[in-house]
Amino acid sequence: MENRTYTADATPGDTVTVAGWVHEIRDLGGIAFLILRDTTGKIQVKFEKDEMDDDLVETGLNVQRESVISVTGAVEEEPRAPTGVEVTPESVDVISEADPELPLDPSGKVDAELPTRLDNRTLDLRKDEVKAIFEIRAEVLRSVREAFRELNCTEINTPKIVATGTEGGTELFPITYFGQEAFMNQSPQLFKQLMVGSGLERVFEIGPIFRAEEHNTPRHLNEATSIDFESAFYDHTEAMDACEHVVQSAYEGVAENCQDQLEALGLEDEFAAPEGDFPRLTYEEALDKINATGELDEPLVWGDDLSTEAEHVLGQEVGEHYFITDWPSEIKPFYIKDHDDDEEVSTGFDMMHPSMELVSGGQREHRFDHLVEGFEQQGLDPEAFEYYTKMFKYGMPPHAGWGLGGERLIMTMLGLENIREAVLFPRDRQRLSP
Amino acid sequence: MENRTYTADATPGDTVTVAGWVHEIRDLGGIAFLILRDTTGKIQVKFEKDEMDDDLVETGLNVQRESVISVTGAVEEEPRAPTGVEVTPESVDVISEADPELPLDPSGKVDAELPTRLDNRTLDLRKDEVKAIFEIRAEVLRSVREAFRELNCTEINTPKIVATGTEGGTELFPITYFGQEAFMNQSPQLFKQLMVGSGLERVFEIGPIFRAEEHNTPRHLNEATSIDFESAFYDHTEAMDACEHVVQSAYEGVAENCQDQLEALGLEDEFAAPEGDFPRLTYEEALDKINATGELDEPLVWGDDLSTEAEHVLGQEVGEHYFITDWPSEIKPFYIKDHDDDEEVSTGFDMMHPSMELVSGGQREHRFDHLVEGFEQQGLDPEAFEYYTKMFKYGMPPHAGWGLGGERLIMTMLGLENIREAVLFPRDRQRLSP
Repeated sequence: MENRTYTADATPGDTVTVAGWVHEIRDLGGIAFLILRDTTGKIQVKFEKDEMDDDLVETGLNVQRESVISVTGAVEEEPRAPTGVEVTPESVDVISEADPELPLDPSGKVDAELPTRLDNRTLDLRKDEVKAIFEIRAEVLRSVREAFRELNCTEINTPKIVATGTEGGTELFPITYFGQEAFMNQSPQLFKQLMVGSGLERVFEIGPIFRAEEHNTPRHLNEATSIDFESAFYDHTEAMDACEHVVQSAYEGVAENCQDQLEALGLEDEFAAPEGDFPRLTYEEALDKINATGELDEPLVWGDDLSTEAEHVLGQEVGEHYFITDWPSEIKPFYIKDHDDDEEVSTGFDMMHPSMELVSGGQREHRFDHLVEGFEQQGLDPEAFEYYTKMFKYGMPPHAGWGLGGERLIMTMLGLENIREAVLFPRDRQRLSP
Repeated sequence: MENRTYTADATPGDTVTVAGWVHEIRDLGGIAFLILRDTTGKIQVKFEKDEMDDDLVETGLNVQRESVISVTGAVEEEPRAPTGVEVTPESVDVISEADPELPLDPSGKVDAELPTRLDNRTLDLRKDEVKAIFEIRAEVLRSVREAFRELNCTEINTPKIVATGTEGGTELFPITYFGQEAFMNQSPQLFKQLMVGSGLERVFEIGPIFRAEEHNTPRHLNEATSIDFESAFYDHTEAMDACEHVVQSAYEGVAENCQDQLEALGLEDEFAAPEGDFPRLTYEEALDKINATGELDEPLVWGDDLSTEAEHVLGQEVGEHYFITDWPSEIKPFYIKDHDDDEEVSTGFDMMHPSMELVSGGQREHRFDHLVEGFEQQGLDPEAFEYYTKMFKYGMPPHAGWGLGGERLIMTMLGLENIREAVLFPRDRQRLSP
């Protein structure tokens, strides 16, 4: 649209054309105000009924809320206006009239439940505090990519249609692929490992993953955004260093570039990037800490996985982002390497926000024989994964990496109650549309 | 790996540990050279047999090509070495021994067919000229995102599992989604349109799209990377301006940041970013130009789509990136808006490289009644798309946008013969693994 001025750029003394949505109309009798909203903010349009053309007044004041209009007029200072300026209209053009009945109130005066919001995301994202989440999400992705660049990573894109899943046939969505059985990929794990054995050495990918898990919780999605990292010649401690850097960069990017959005969310005071290194607790230390609180019905013993409750107890104790390292090998995936001096203990690690797990990673098994053995112990046919395992015969370096749940990062960063709030169009067991 | 020095950073006078792959061993009798390769380049390791420990010499010279090793030793200047320096080893550690039989020769001395290369991408990407393609691909994505940022776009991620396709049921891969019928999305078209009606106004997405087309050509993929743009209050000419900016930025990013990669591909001299505005031909002008060459068996008439042959003829005539505008409405998708003063003519446009179409876009139909009519004329049930159409009743601004084929951009930029060369693990009718 030619000559459009954003409401935020309307300067007293200029004659401008602003365009956007009718946020509100307040008719005070002889004078009325229309609040026009665009992506940069809002501006007041003043109608002085006795001094203006009747048609103009009628057009401006009879338009339905949330209609799209453009207004041309002079901008003047007006201290009583919400943004300190107002427009006196010369013309009003109704571009796209809205129905009087809206399924959701973008002014936020009437609350809406999450399902209604998700069914009407277009309207929902007209609210500053919802729009802010997705502007922050975009900044998180940008900062994360910059952080990977600082780590000399090459961005890769791996296929989402695959013949076999990372960890076998469970939790995969089946596809019909030209008459063949195929699946939507649950993780780029195998592909990113193939790439560290190539000349790229260190890679990252940000992309969708698909998990047919029947969970129905506020922190699980069936389609999610995975932030994946993998590096040749890294061990698990170096992978953890990279993880710290990436997560801190995400927070720093938001702190630097999203002050308005944090304000819209009421987080401008409490938001802080995590400082310094994240504490690294061994699994054993974690168990001790949890058991010492006495908050679980039964104390945890070596080999137990951490329940959601245990994670919460531990998160409260630690009170910041932290790693759990040195897990029992038996509860970590088979492609994670065990410690050389103790094969009962895995190099796998998790990175935790006090409220939930964000990252899972570790050094990988790069020795062909051990890897094939791992497939067999898992009850998987190594033949089905030959495209992957055979590359371990041709010079596969030691390597380590991790996967970070993109939506969980945003959810914990902003204190969202439901992970679906961090996704434009979430997918869960019940929700396939829009 | 602690204390690892990249081969490119090995400085004469230092004692370093370098790690990577055995690229080549040249045994000249009393002296032998091992060329070690890592992601930054190559370095020569010198073995003087009479002056060195026998075990060290044996380890260094009997290791299989493409094995992963580390070498610790003093770096010295050596003008006859490929990079001007060499390492005299104090120790050699074989980290991951390679099979003597390789399915593909990473030194490039033996050519491999594309299917063999794709089956063995890990080895294939040890070649400089293959690695270069994917480093350039990463830079293209980075530059494109920066360009979108300059255009004040918000990055979005839309779902890849959907209940309905953009243009109906053909060419969609069906999924079983918790017992429901679903599909892999063929385009973010409908979702990005929903977002321009939100407070975000201007958005982009780079993500996978899935098309069950039975094409089997050097320029079609069944899973591809789509670069999508959409903006409220834009018409088709403004969308074309944005398209020019993004494509030029991709070229400029590569020119600035990928000189080594262009050299590896032998493109350092001929590579040039397109300059100035891309010519904008109307469909009618395009037809005239093509017909004037007399190269087609039958002249094209109004309403004909452009065949691959016609595109080639026209591309040769124009000789640079160009737009084709003002297409007959009947051969453009129903969600593209017709010109207000002539509904036989669409605002749809294509952006072409001389060798093929890269972009398809246009101003969209934002009027609810016209849109629903379009669905019906297409033989689609508007009810099935209600999640999308209903948002057009609540203040949908005029908007325009486009989709750019990521792999086609890279393919044409680098003059690749087959689009599969621009994808790590391409998917086509025959290829589902790796």
